[in-house]
Amino acid sequence: MEVGLLGLGIMGKAISMNLLRNGFKVVVWNRTLSKCDELVAHGATVGGSPAEVVKKCKITFGMLADPPAALSVVFDKGGVLEQICPGKGYIDMSTVDPETSAKISEGVTSKGGVFLEAPVSGSKQPAETGQLIILTAGEKALYDEAAPALNVIGKKSFFLGQVGNGAKMKLVVNMIMGCVMNSFSEGLVLAEKSGLNPHTLLDVLDLGAVSSPLIRGKGPAMLQSNYSPAFPLKHQQKDIRLALGLGDENAISMPIAAAANETFKKARSLGLGDLDFSAVFEAVKDLQRLS
Amino acid sequence: MEVGLLGLGIMGKAISMNLLRNGFKVVVWNRTLSKCDELVAHGATVGGSPAEVVKKCKITFGMLADPPAALSVVFDKGGVLEQICPGKGYIDMSTVDPETSAKISEGVTSKGGVFLEAPVSGSKQPAETGQLIILTAGEKALYDEAAPALNVIGKKSFFLGQVGNGAKMKLVVNMIMGCVMNSFSEGLVLAEKSGLNPHTLLDVLDLGAVSSPLIRGKGPAMLQSNYSPAFPLKHQQKDIRLALGLGDENAISMPIAAAANETFKKARSLGLGDLDFSAVFEAVKDLQRLS
Amino acid sequence: MEVGLLGLGIMGKAISMNLLRNGFKVVVWNRTLSKCDELVAHGATVGGSPAEVVKKCKITFGMLADPPAALSVVFDKGGVLEQICPGKGYIDMSTVDPETSAKISEGVTSKGGVFLEAPVSGSKQPAETGQLIILTAGEKALYDEAAPALNVIGKKSFFLGQVGNGAKMKLVVNMIMGCVMNSFSEGLVLAEKSGLNPHTLLDVLDLGAVSSPLIRGKGPAMLQSNYSPAFPLKHQQKDIRLALGLGDENAISMPIAAAANETFKKARSLGLGDLDFSAVFEAVKDLQRLS
Amino acid sequence: MEVGLLGLGIMGKAISMNLLRNGFKVVVWNRTLSKCDELVAHGATVGGSPAEVVKKCKITFGMLADPPAALSVVFDKGGVLEQICPGKGYIDMSTVDPETSAKISEGVTSKGGVFLEAPVSGSKQPAETGQLIILTAGEKALYDEAAPALNVIGKKSFFLGQVGNGAKMKLVVNMIMGCVMNSFSEGLVLAEKSGLNPHTLLDVLDLGAVSSPLIRGKGPAMLQSNYSPAFPLKHQQKDIRLALGLGDENAISMPIAAAANETFKKARSLGLGDLDFSAVFEAVKDLQRLS
Repeated sequence: MEVGLLGLGIMGKAISMNLLRNGFKVVVWNRTLSKCDELVAHGATVGGSPAEVVKKCKITFGMLADPPAALSVVFDKGGVLEQICPGKGYIDMSTVDPETSAKISEGVTSKGGVFLEAPVSGSKQPAETGQLIILTAGEKALYDEAAPALNVIGKKSFFLGQVGNGAKMKLVVNMIMGCVMNSFSEGLVLAEKSGLNPHTLLDVLDLGAVSSPLIRGKGPAMLQSNYSPAFPLKHQQKDIRLALGLGDENAISMPIAAAANETFKKARSLGLGDLDFSAVFEAVKDLQRLS
Repeated sequence: MEVGLLGLGIMGKAISMNLLRNGFKVVVWNRTLSKCDELVAHGATVGGSPAEVVKKCKITFGMLADPPAALSVVFDKGGVLEQICPGKGYIDMSTVDPETSAKISEGVTSKGGVFLEAPVSGSKQPAETGQLIILTAGEKALYDEAAPALNVIGKKSFFLGQVGNGAKMKLVVNMIMGCVMNSFSEGLVLAEKSGLNPHTLLDVLDLGAVSSPLIRGKGPAMLQSNYSPAFPLKHQQKDIRLALGLGDENAISMPIAAAANETFKKARSLGLGDLDFSAVFEAVKDLQRLS
Repeated sequence: MEVGLLGLGIMGKAISMNLLRNGFKVVVWNRTLSKCDELVAHGATVGGSPAEVVKKCKITFGMLADPPAALSVVFDKGGVLEQICPGKGYIDMSTVDPETSAKISEGVTSKGGVFLEAPVSGSKQPAETGQLIILTAGEKALYDEAAPALNVIGKKSFFLGQVGNGAKMKLVVNMIMGCVMNSFSEGLVLAEKSGLNPHTLLDVLDLGAVSSPLIRGKGPAMLQSNYSPAFPLKHQQKDIRLALGLGDENAISMPIAAAANETFKKARSLGLGDLDFSAVFEAVKDLQRLS
Repeated sequence: MEVGLLGLGIMGKAISMNLLRNGFKVVVWNRTLSKCDELVAHGATVGGSPAEVVKKCKITFGMLADPPAALSVVFDKGGVLEQICPGKGYIDMSTVDPETSAKISEGVTSKGGVFLEAPVSGSKQPAETGQLIILTAGEKALYDEAAPALNVIGKKSFFLGQVGNGAKMKLVVNMIMGCVMNSFSEGLVLAEKSGLNPHTLLDVLDLGAVSSPLIRGKGPAMLQSNYSPAFPLKHQQKDIRLALGLGDENAISMPIAAAANETFKKARSLGLGDLDFSAVFEAVKDLQRLS
């Protein structure tokens, strides 16, 4: 099967490599074309623009960094809309707000194409090993048609209904994750400043009810102040902000998320925005900086 | 080995039964003596008072509901202190604040006895199956001597040093757990009111970074408003309050815990205190009760 | 002096009446033209559209309910931009976000007109009696030229510099006000549920450091559950949300405002959005609704 | 009239001087007796212990720093209880928690004396000029009898009923004050970091609904980082903590107060505890310390 993939950042590159490794033909495009070289060395071909990629492929995936980039590859000159047409599908895996996704959906379908919103849960390593969770919404027919690719990209795909539902589900999941990371950080600081060994806390948590891949995976690195970015903190804070905005539409009061959002902002102000979101631990520690 | 056990509430009874099943002789006591009957039917013997139990046993465990009860069985007439002496040990598995634990420790050691603080993490089912996590602190020699019993009571024991460390570790763990439950509840409400299927959210979470026994175990019941108490909400709120108090001693700022504490208080005010702590979901739902 | 005034809601009408009473000629416009009748009876003349008003007047004021309305009267067909030109000024007193104000400013100046952002602090009664506080920013020359009118409209005007500063100042002021109202509400509930007479709390506060027109003016009505709207709660919540958004741009952590925002959302969900913002007291009371 | 006064800290000394200036005979006592000298120079006499003071006076006032000190002067050797008897009254103006006040009341009345709880609102300067607000509760007859002194000590006295009500009212008032100071601080930081002049914000606030002696009095000093202590921050944080504890008894959810409490703890951790409570501004500023 041949698919297109726009955007070769950490996630886009990892997904492309995984597809190539599993026998897919992949036509790639990236704003900085040189980033395509490594993919080409693994068997990919290159499109000179998003439009060129769409021209060659029945199905094209997008994996852009943020809403502006996601909109740009679709609407700008040389963008997806120049070549999308009946029979072709666009699957946007970027994490964007529901409004952006709606715009892209409208653009694609107005040209007769079919659209699937498909943000993913999981970061670099699950992307490399095809263990992502894919939260799709939009055109069911495209979801079905893309199944061979989705089954390689992720360990599980969900079809959640109308466009917007994938984006919303992603925001909810990331909101919970940010709150859990924040709660865990407060516990680590409380333990340490109360005279306990934080490593022992990790051991205790690992055996109990709140044991999770997140805590297990990131706890030890946090205790070594190692925040090599898997999921940048600035994006985590943006996601909680968007989740709060989603709640605001329906007057949903979310005090924990609101408090976590403020701590992540504090972390941004400390210059931690490009580190892994677990760096919020530094902000929580800073909340009790002894003079 | 013969041990004493004071307090046959949900936890004390389950622990006793497990010990009996594993070949221990157990001398039990409960304020309402009739509660001993079932244990006697399984091979336990009865002490007419805490002092009588201590008289018969080298090591006696306490599993009382709260600090007042924990203090009472030690200090009151007919209490542990009337019979504790050199060569005898008292292991208090009640969840109490560090100050209460310190008082009990002082009382026991002032009579020449040895003391081990040993609150447990886990509720009814792990108590029945010997899968608790035991957070001990105090007299290492007693910890070593009680190992055969501790190995049956729990899946893992920790020795955390000086008296107070076990109580503190318990508070930290329960604080994180309460915050996670609260965050999860906010996510469930946000999902539902944004048009998503909350059951699908459970499925997504289960595959991802914040997947945990807590969410997996309680999520479905919460969606059915089933809050059959494993860990009463009023105790969860008390534990977060105590954790905040512990933080206050060292001027540790914990905004997430503080926000969670207020939501659990809200839940108490709704009359949910005796239900499982997952009933905080009802309070979070109530935070957006549409008129 | 002759001025135009677009928008005859509570504030626009009160401001117009005050100007007429003070000898100004006022040309009014309102989407529902019949609302102009009462003003005409007091000496105003009517413009059939915003453009017609601008055509007649050197200076035109806008007092619209929200950003969409504020943008509409400027950019739509028959709007301000059709007649604004060199020598004419537009002064927007609507409370809008800085981005909306920037758009309007751009539109006006692109036609050669001059613009002044001028949100006001104060509600109906100060509007009627010319006791508003006017927070202007933009074209200083227009500020000076409009001085005779501003001096009648308000008790004090501030010129705050570049466009956006007026909107920002308004958001900061309203954020503080919303937090104070929320804090005061929590105090009232704590007093009452602790067995104190809340009326006595009002008396005590009135003599002390936090005595303010807000508490003095609204306290007694709140204790009678009288929330006749002077400043609708939904607008107060929107202002706090916008203030938090302003803070987010610069990673400013504002935990009190964030907590207050969630309580105001809760109040909206209780259907209190159209009542006076002091109705947040009902939401705070509801936070401890005894079962 | 002759009265006793125990405790010559900032408040006790100021109150004594004011009474002496107004023609009262005052018998003073302080743990460090040398502190009495200045009062003696102004006409006071000295008691060698609290008991000696009570022996000489029909009515004795206490103005101690905290609950331990307040309990000590009553219950310790040489304390109030050694001389209190029918016909004598003790009026405790210390700010203590309701439980401490109850203990003192019990002690005094068990000896046949009469007790009045009388915490004050206001700090050094109102104490010097007799402008305090006195929040009394307990024995009405003693309240009436002490009226001549109360009328000099304060500008207004309230009799609030049973012992505990004065302490509770004080906590509620101080909780509101702490939240207002925190909200004001967040507004100042938001203004400054959004490019506004914070001094202008003070001017705007002063004209509006939340204008208060607190903001008017402390705002300018805060902008100069002048936190000369009138009301120590550590006491403010203790009062909010006690207010939250009072709320916890009745499951009263107070999210604003909870958030403010965490910020005041943060301020303590920055070493600001002995400065005026307005120094919380530094903690709020620190929440957005740019890297």
